[in-house]
Amino acid sequence: MKVAIIFGSKSDTDKMKGAASVLKEFDVEYEAYVLSAHRVPEKLMDTIKRIEAKGCECIIAGAGLAAHLPGVIASHTVLPVIGVPINAAVNGMDSLLSIVQMPKSIPVATVGINNSYNAGMLAVQMLSLKYPEIKDKLIEYRKNMKEKFIKENEEGVEF
Amino acid sequence: MKVAIIFGSKSDTDKMKGAASVLKEFDVEYEAYVLSAHRVPEKLMDTIKRIEAKGCECIIAGAGLAAHLPGVIASHTVLPVIGVPINAAVNGMDSLLSIVQMPKSIPVATVGINNSYNAGMLAVQMLSLKYPEIKDKLIEYRKNMKEKFIKENEEGVEF
Amino acid sequence: MKVAIIFGSKSDTDKMKGAASVLKEFDVEYEAYVLSAHRVPEKLMDTIKRIEAKGCECIIAGAGLAAHLPGVIASHTVLPVIGVPINAAVNGMDSLLSIVQMPKSIPVATVGINNSYNAGMLAVQMLSLKYPEIKDKLIEYRKNMKEKFIKENEEGVEF
Amino acid sequence: MKVAIIFGSKSDTDKMKGAASVLKEFDVEYEAYVLSAHRVPEKLMDTIKRIEAKGCECIIAGAGLAAHLPGVIASHTVLPVIGVPINAAVNGMDSLLSIVQMPKSIPVATVGINNSYNAGMLAVQMLSLKYPEIKDKLIEYRKNMKEKFIKENEEGVEF
Amino acid sequence: MKVAIIFGSKSDTDKMKGAASVLKEFDVEYEAYVLSAHRVPEKLMDTIKRIEAKGCECIIAGAGLAAHLPGVIASHTVLPVIGVPINAAVNGMDSLLSIVQMPKSIPVATVGINNSYNAGMLAVQMLSLKYPEIKDKLIEYRKNMKEKFIKENEEGVEF
Amino acid sequence: MKVAIIFGSKSDTDKMKGAASVLKEFDVEYEAYVLSAHRVPEKLMDTIKRIEAKGCECIIAGAGLAAHLPGVIASHTVLPVIGVPINAAVNGMDSLLSIVQMPKSIPVATVGINNSYNAGMLAVQMLSLKYPEIKDKLIEYRKNMKEKFIKENEEGVEF
Amino acid sequence: MKVAIIFGSKSDTDKMKGAASVLKEFDVEYEAYVLSAHRVPEKLMDTIKRIEAKGCECIIAGAGLAAHLPGVIASHTVLPVIGVPINAAVNGMDSLLSIVQMPKSIPVATVGINNSYNAGMLAVQMLSLKYPEIKDKLIEYRKNMKEKFIKENEEGVEF
Amino acid sequence: MKVAIIFGSKSDTDKMKGAASVLKEFDVEYEAYVLSAHRVPEKLMDTIKRIEAKGCECIIAGAGLAAHLPGVIASHTVLPVIGVPINAAVNGMDSLLSIVQMPKSIPVATVGINNSYNAGMLAVQMLSLKYPEIKDKLIEYRKNMKEKFIKENEEGVEF
Repeated sequence: MKVAIIFGSKSDTDKMKGAASVLKEFDVEYEAYVLSAHRVPEKLMDTIKRIEAKGCECIIAGAGLAAHLPGVIASHTVLPVIGVPINAAVNGMDSLLSIVQMPKSIPVATVGINNSYNAGMLAVQMLSLKYPEIKDKLIEYRKNMKEKFIKENEEGVEF
Repeated sequence: MKVAIIFGSKSDTDKMKGAASVLKEFDVEYEAYVLSAHRVPEKLMDTIKRIEAKGCECIIAGAGLAAHLPGVIASHTVLPVIGVPINAAVNGMDSLLSIVQMPKSIPVATVGINNSYNAGMLAVQMLSLKYPEIKDKLIEYRKNMKEKFIKENEEGVEF
Repeated sequence: MKVAIIFGSKSDTDKMKGAASVLKEFDVEYEAYVLSAHRVPEKLMDTIKRIEAKGCECIIAGAGLAAHLPGVIASHTVLPVIGVPINAAVNGMDSLLSIVQMPKSIPVATVGINNSYNAGMLAVQMLSLKYPEIKDKLIEYRKNMKEKFIKENEEGVEF
Repeated sequence: MKVAIIFGSKSDTDKMKGAASVLKEFDVEYEAYVLSAHRVPEKLMDTIKRIEAKGCECIIAGAGLAAHLPGVIASHTVLPVIGVPINAAVNGMDSLLSIVQMPKSIPVATVGINNSYNAGMLAVQMLSLKYPEIKDKLIEYRKNMKEKFIKENEEGVEF
Repeated sequence: MKVAIIFGSKSDTDKMKGAASVLKEFDVEYEAYVLSAHRVPEKLMDTIKRIEAKGCECIIAGAGLAAHLPGVIASHTVLPVIGVPINAAVNGMDSLLSIVQMPKSIPVATVGINNSYNAGMLAVQMLSLKYPEIKDKLIEYRKNMKEKFIKENEEGVEF
Repeated sequence: MKVAIIFGSKSDTDKMKGAASVLKEFDVEYEAYVLSAHRVPEKLMDTIKRIEAKGCECIIAGAGLAAHLPGVIASHTVLPVIGVPINAAVNGMDSLLSIVQMPKSIPVATVGINNSYNAGMLAVQMLSLKYPEIKDKLIEYRKNMKEKFIKENEEGVEF
Repeated sequence: MKVAIIFGSKSDTDKMKGAASVLKEFDVEYEAYVLSAHRVPEKLMDTIKRIEAKGCECIIAGAGLAAHLPGVIASHTVLPVIGVPINAAVNGMDSLLSIVQMPKSIPVATVGINNSYNAGMLAVQMLSLKYPEIKDKLIEYRKNMKEKFIKENEEGVEF
Repeated sequence: MKVAIIFGSKSDTDKMKGAASVLKEFDVEYEAYVLSAHRVPEKLMDTIKRIEAKGCECIIAGAGLAAHLPGVIASHTVLPVIGVPINAAVNGMDSLLSIVQMPKSIPVATVGINNSYNAGMLAVQMLSLKYPEIKDKLIEYRKNMKEKFIKENEEGVEF
C-alpha cells in the first residue's frame, strides 16, 4: 500500500472517487479511510501511525468547511499530504483557504476545489520520483491523453 | 485558574492582549500559552489535559491563516472554545472561515477578526452563568460602559 | 427554561431546528420565538426582559442578510448570545459578517453558516460549566459520537 | 434642524465630515451625535424620538464592522435613513453588507464605502422634494460642478 | 405621477414587482419603463427629461451585472435615484458594487440585492417628507406590520 | 490621432501613464482627456463625437469605484473601448466588475487592475490589424522584449 | 478566415456559441478549435502558427477554472486575444482573475463571465477598424438594436 | 541538481528566498531561474527540457497576478510542480486561484500565498520518498522544530 485516501464523511465518497480512479489506473495500491480530525482525533492519529508502518508514502485528504483534516494529518507525519478542498459552503472558498494557508514548516499540497482526480495524479507524480515504472506509465498516460484529446477534437466543433 | 488563552506564536501577543485585559478587569484568573496545533500537536494535547485538570472552564484560542488551533482544541475537550481569527493574510478571511465553519457537533464560538477583547468578554459572560459575582460585575461593567460612553460624547461632535 | 431560540421569520424554522434538536437531546429546556430586530424591536426588548426574568441563561439567535438580530439582542442583555448566520444571499457571507464582526465589548458567539446544530451544542457547553449533569452528558455524548463514527466507518469505503 | 448625523465613535468624525460639509454648503441645519446601537441602545432610541420631535426629516448614520446602527435606527423611525459603510476591516465589505442587505420593509439608503459626502448629497436631494429653495441650489450646484470640472480639465492632461 | 421605475430588460419585471407593489399599497402614482443605459442611452436621457417634466419626484432603477443604469440616471437629474442591484452573476456582487460605489457628488441610494420592495418603501419614505398623507400611511403601515408580525408569530414555533 | 485616453480625474494621471507610454513607444498619436461619465455626461458625449470625427480608432478609458466611464463611452460609439479598472477601494474589485460585466452587445475590452500599460498594448494590437507598420513594430517589440528579458536574467538569481 | 475561436473542451460549446453567432451575423469568417493549453500545448502552438498563416486577425479564447488558455495564446502571438471567462467554479471568479490579470506587455481583452457574445462583438469592432464594410454593418447593427429595443418596450411594462 | 526554482521576475527574489533556504538546510541541490510563461515561453520550454535532462525531480514555480507559470510548466513535464501564489494584487487571491484551480489531469501542488518556505518543505517531503537520508533529516527537522518551539515558549507569555 503506497497511498492512503482519508476523508471526513461517507457522504463525500463520490467527490473523492477521482483520486481512487487515478491510483487504480496507475496500479498504485491505496487504502481509503473515513476519519474526522474533529470527531475522532485519536483514531486519526492511530491510523496515521498504522499506515506509516504499512509503508504508506503519500496521504490524500479531502475535507469541506473548516477543512482541518489535511493540515492535522500533516502535523502528525512527514509524509507529503495532498489536500482536496470540498465544496460544502461558500463555493468551497472556506475549505480552500483552510487547507492551502498552512503555516511555515507544515505544508499541504493543495489541489483545486472538488478536484480529487488531480490529487490522485499528484500522488502518482510524487511516487514516480522513486518508482521508474510509475514514471514510465506517467509519460505514457500523458502521451495517450494528448492523442485522445486530439482525436476527439480533430473534426472541429459545430455551433 | 478559570480561562486558558492559547495562541500559535509569540508575535501575536499584542493581538491577544485584549482577551487578557478583560479577564484582569473581571478578576478572572487565566493562564496563557503559546502552542501550535501544527508544530507541537502532542504538547497541545497534553496542555489541554493539564488545564482541564486544573479546573479551567473556558479556552480562548487565537490563530491566523489556516487557523486550525481553536478547532483542534475543541476536538480534544468539551469545554467551550472561543476562537479569535487573526489577520495574517487576505484581510483575515482565511482565518475567520477556518475557525467559524466547524462541522456539526464540534463548535467554536467565533468572535470578530483581531477582536480578542470580545473573546475575553464572551468568556466572562459564559462564566457569569455559574459565578454570581461575575454576573454582578458584568451588569456593573455594562452600566459603566454606557455612562462613560454618554459622558464622553454628550458635548456632541464638531466637524 | 434555560435557553431561548430566537429568529426572524417562521420560514427559517427548518434551518433553526438543529439547535432545538441538540437541546432536546440534552434535556435542556428551551423556548423558541419568532421575533425581528427590525420589525418588532420593542417586542424583542420586552421578550429579552421576560426570558431573563424566567431564568434564561443563554440566547441563540439566527438571522440572514443584514443579520442584526443576534447583535441587537446582545446589546440588551449580558447573557451570552450565540449567533447563527443563515444563508439568504451571497452564500451567507452578508449574514456571517453582520453577526461576527461585533464591536468591542458586545460579542456574539458565532457559529458556521446555517449550522444551528452547533449553536445548540455551544449552548450546552456553556451550561455545562454550571450544571454537572450536563457536563456528564456532554462527555457521554462525545464518547458516543466517537464510537458511532468509528463503527459506521470501520468497514472502510468502497469507490 | 432638518438632518441628524449619527455615528458610533468619535474616532470616525473625520470619515463623517463629508456629510456635514455638504449640508453646510446647502445651508441645511443639522445636528451630529455620537451614539452606538450596541453600547447605548436606550440613549439611541431616546435620541431618535427627540430628533423626530425637533422636526428632523432625514437621518444619516455611519458605522463600521457589523454596522447595525443605520438599520437599528431605521427600525425605530419612518424617516428615511441613509447609511454610510465605514471601512474598519475587510475593506469595508462587512460594513457595506451589514447596512445594505436590510430585510423587506425597513430599507436603509446605502452610499459607497467611506463616502459620507454622498450621504450628505442624498439627504439634500431628499429634502429638495419638499423645499424648492434647496432644489434650486441643487440645480445650481450641479451646474457649477460641471463648469468647474470642465474648467479644471480643459487644458488637457500631460503624462 | 410621482415615481418612475426604470429597468433594463423585460425579463427583470418579476424582480422589480416589489417596488410597484409598495407604491400601489401607498397609492403613489408611478410609471414603469424598460430602458437600457447601454443600448438606448439617448432614449433614456429623453425619458428622464420627460418624467421630470411630468413632475416625477423620485426614480427607482434596477439593473444587473455592470449595473450602470442607476448611476447614469443620477448623472442626468438631481432627483433622488434609488438603485436595486439585481443578481445576474457572482451572486449580485457585481451589480451591488456597480451601483453603490458612486463617486463623490452623484449618489445612488442603494438597497439590498434583488430587494425592489425596499426600493419602493424608500421612495415612499422620501415622498413622506413632503406629503403628510403619505407620512400618515407610513406610520399606519409600520404599526400594522408590527401587529401582523406579532399576531402571526404569537403562538410560537414548533420544531 | 488614433487613440483617445479618457479618465475621470487628474489624480489618476499617474495610473494611466502606462497607456500613454506604450502609445509613444509605438509612435501612435493619442489625445488624453479628463472627463467624468457622472459629472459631465454631456461633455463626454460631445467629446466622443469630436474624437470620432478626428478619426480616432480606439478609446482607452480608466476609472475607479463604480467605474461606469468605459461602459458609458461604449454605449455612444462603435469604436472598440478598452477599460482599465483603477483600484480606489476594495482592491479594485468594484471597478473590475463594473467594467468587465457589460451586458450583451456592448463589450468593454477589460485589462488588469491598474494595468494601463496593457491597455496601451491592446490598443496597439488592435491598430496593427490595419497598419502594417505597427504590426512590424509589434513583432519587433515582442522580439526585443524576449531578448531583453533573457539578457537581464541569464546570469541566474542569487538568494 | 478572420477570427479563430478556441476553447478547452467540447462541453463548453454552448457557452461559446454566442461568439460564433455574432460573427455569423456580421459575415465574418471564423474557425473554431477545441484545444487545451495544459493538455495539448504543442498542438495549441502549432495551431496558432497555422491560423496566423491563414490570415487570422483576432483570436477569441474561452476557458474556465485556472483559465490559462487566453494568456498562453497571447504569449505566442501578437494578434489581439479576447478572453471569455467561463463559470465552472466559484461563480467564475477564478476564471475571470486568471484571464484579466495578465502581466505587463501581454494583455488579454477580457469580457464578462460566460459572455462569449460580447467576445464576438469585440472581435467585430476590432475588425471594423480595417474593414469599412464591417464598420458600416456595426453602425447598422447598433441602430437596429436601438430600434428593436424601443419597439419591444414601447408599450411599457405591466406588473 | 534535484529541484528547480522558477519565477517570473527578479523583483520576486525575496519572496522566493524561503524555498531556497529550506533546500539549503536539507542539502538539496537546486538551481534557480527567472523565466516568464508569457514573455519567454520558448525559453521556458527549453529550460524545462534542460533541467529534466539534468535529473531535476521537482519544480517550484512562483508567480503573481494571472499566475500561469506553474500550470504552464506542469503542462510540459510530468515532474511534480509546486506553485507559490505571490501577492501582487487583490491580496493574492488572483494568483492563488490561477494556480490551484488547474483542470483534471495536470495538477499543481499549491502552497499558501507568499509561502515559498512551504514550497521548499514540500519539495523536500517529495524527495524524501526516494532518498532515505532526506527522510531522516526530515524526521530530525520536525523533532528539532518541536523542541525549539517548546523551549522558546516554555516560560509562557506576558501580556
